[in-house]
Amino acid sequence: LGAVSEMKVLSVLMTRDSSSFETFAMQSIRVEVAGIPGDRHYGLLRPADGRQKLYPRGTPIANRRQISIVSAEECARIANSLGVPSIRPEWLGANVLVSGAPALSALPRGARLLFSGGTGLICEGENLPCVGPGELVERALGRSGLRSAFVQAAMGRRGIVCSVEKEGMLAPGETVRVAEGS
Amino acid sequence: LGAVSEMKVLSVLMTRDSSSFETFAMQSIRVEVAGIPGDRHYGLLRPADGRQKLYPRGTPIANRRQISIVSAEECARIANSLGVPSIRPEWLGANVLVSGAPALSALPRGARLLFSGGTGLICEGENLPCVGPGELVERALGRSGLRSAFVQAAMGRRGIVCSVEKEGMLAPGETVRVAEGS
Repeated sequence: LGAVSEMKVLSVLMTRDSSSFETFAMQSIRVEVAGIPGDRHYGLLRPADGRQKLYPRGTPIANRRQISIVSAEECARIANSLGVPSIRPEWLGANVLVSGAPALSALPRGARLLFSGGTGLICEGENLPCVGPGELVERALGRSGLRSAFVQAAMGRRGIVCSVEKEGMLAPGETVRVAEGS
Repeated sequence: LGAVSEMKVLSVLMTRDSSSFETFAMQSIRVEVAGIPGDRHYGLLRPADGRQKLYPRGTPIANRRQISIVSAEECARIANSLGVPSIRPEWLGANVLVSGAPALSALPRGARLLFSGGTGLICEGENLPCVGPGELVERALGRSGLRSAFVQAAMGRRGIVCSVEKEGMLAPGETVRVAEGS
């Protein structure tokens, strides 16, 4: 946990609607126990997908993947691996871009992220790369082959998904304290 | 996880209202993502207490302690330690009494409990003993001193608290499969 002790929020983002997971930077976002109102991943329940093998696909289960966080350092490493100028948080569908977290994706499940504005999130583990963001990356940078290369390059650098412990607002400039789960 | 592979539901219980945490056996209970409707611990949010030191007491935070589960084997060990005939799940405010789980309280956080009726719960860790149940035990058995002796005797045997992953009904006779978190 010490490795991410200087975390700061660079930007906050949300989807425009539920048709695409591409996110767009906002001045601030509201975070509720069910997620970010209006965002594609908002909801107390969501259908189980291939990552939840305990339930048949489509079974409504508790949604613990409302908020996606990526770090500037890990995005830079993905870009470097792919040989592209940058990887934007928008293409990853991220809701929060932070700095000061070169090993954000390794943050243990159950770790708490306490934002200086009062909002509190629970780390639910690494966000496993899928082809969706790769498609956005390939389209944005106009180079074929990036789609599948992205999955490889993003492994272990794709950031984390979080659920909400303490509701509130999130905005750029906030600092983040990381604590063990209670 | 192997130690609890033969788990079975002996009874399901809920509080009568929110004035006491004493529970009462039911034919079945409904389990929603916010908990058991009508039960004292129902709710998406609950006020932080002394166990959540990251937030000032009373701060509304996500409720991940809706369902309390105890095992017949651990209750028998508590009773044996105290030298009393039995410890009833009602006195502990338990919502589910299972058999076949002599080490239920050691079930790791994040483990899944998959009930044969389709309901799925997430283990949120050991339920730390407090004086509340000890008071009920002392009153029910009419022996002074049990209140504080209970806390000692119940340590590591008090069962677990769970949140809800898959909504559904719970009833006696169901079997429970324990799986690692996904």
